[in-house]
Amino acid sequence: MNIAVIGAGNMGAGLARLFASSGHQVVIGARQPEKAAALAAEIGSQVQGGGIAAAVKLADIVVLALPYGAAAEALKEAGDLSGKVVVDISNPLKPDFSGLVIGHTTSAAEEIQALVGKAVVVKAFNTVFAQLLPREARAARPLQVFVAADDAAAKAKVTELAASAGFEPVDAGPLGNARYLEPIGMMNIAFGYFLGRGPTVAPAWASF
Amino acid sequence: MNIAVIGAGNMGAGLARLFASSGHQVVIGARQPEKAAALAAEIGSQVQGGGIAAAVKLADIVVLALPYGAAAEALKEAGDLSGKVVVDISNPLKPDFSGLVIGHTTSAAEEIQALVGKAVVVKAFNTVFAQLLPREARAARPLQVFVAADDAAAKAKVTELAASAGFEPVDAGPLGNARYLEPIGMMNIAFGYFLGRGPTVAPAWASF
Repeated sequence: MNIAVIGAGNMGAGLARLFASSGHQVVIGARQPEKAAALAAEIGSQVQGGGIAAAVKLADIVVLALPYGAAAEALKEAGDLSGKVVVDISNPLKPDFSGLVIGHTTSAAEEIQALVGKAVVVKAFNTVFAQLLPREARAARPLQVFVAADDAAAKAKVTELAASAGFEPVDAGPLGNARYLEPIGMMNIAFGYFLGRGPTVAPAWASF
Repeated sequence: MNIAVIGAGNMGAGLARLFASSGHQVVIGARQPEKAAALAAEIGSQVQGGGIAAAVKLADIVVLALPYGAAAEALKEAGDLSGKVVVDISNPLKPDFSGLVIGHTTSAAEEIQALVGKAVVVKAFNTVFAQLLPREARAARPLQVFVAADDAAAKAKVTELAASAGFEPVDAGPLGNARYLEPIGMMNIAFGYFLGRGPTVAPAWASF
């Protein structure tokens, strides 16, 4: 797949590295193109890096690996997103991580869908800590990735992407279920950072 | 422990049966006392059943096994709850189960805390389907119960209660984390009833 990862932070770097090592074409885009280029060079010669619009142009799947508060500005730079699959991995955190800035009647995923017009948004990866992106960090057992979307074809693509990177994708229903997935992401952060378990925990749904 | 289970529905019946079989003194209370008495008789001679106020009087721990919308009326009948531990197991569901009626800035647990005054509320069991209450239904692996409360002693009691019934209790932080636990309960219902997995799924947090 042709994937643009927007954002060169911990999640962006981890996802770009993972997707590239899983056989995909990866372009990193950032508001500071030189930061994206440096990260791409660090990952390896098969990965490119530059500005956001250039990265988006080359991709079918655009992964927004940004804090929720930075998504709107980045999307303004993205250019035409028509027909692309936009993956929202965010949790709309308060600056001090003490809670979410939106929820219940909306979600980060739904707000981003409203911003991207004719692109289709898929919620995924928001319950995965950056520390658990490398395959070797989760070698002991499968890590679930919850995938929510209204568009079946887009959901299938992101499901395939997650599986190709060694995750166990879980169908989490329509995009509106981000209203539950984002509090799950917040609870994961609470377990990891506030309840002493460390950022190597993750939620899973088990069948009994 | 002396436990009052308020409510004679699926969750109330399942919890009363489970706690009684785990060696606790159980009284069932319901707005229709004859319904509580009939359920108690069905479970066994060691369980009593009657009105809500009578049940509460005998108990240290009061488990509200009611739909969230019915809690306020039931609590009016409960009498003095000072010093008791009130366990809120609810998810504040819309009548058609399509979402939650409150969230983000509050939670069922916090609303119930506001109603019960000097009692202390503990959130627990809201991610456990009635079908998974019997020990034999979860014999294959541990089922986690997320326990959130502001009062450490009350949290310890409910943690012990959950462990005595064969669950794996998980410290989920302060009562305000019910804002995340209730969407987790809603996602569990979505997996069970809307996404084809059946009401024998449950969330768990794994450490990697």
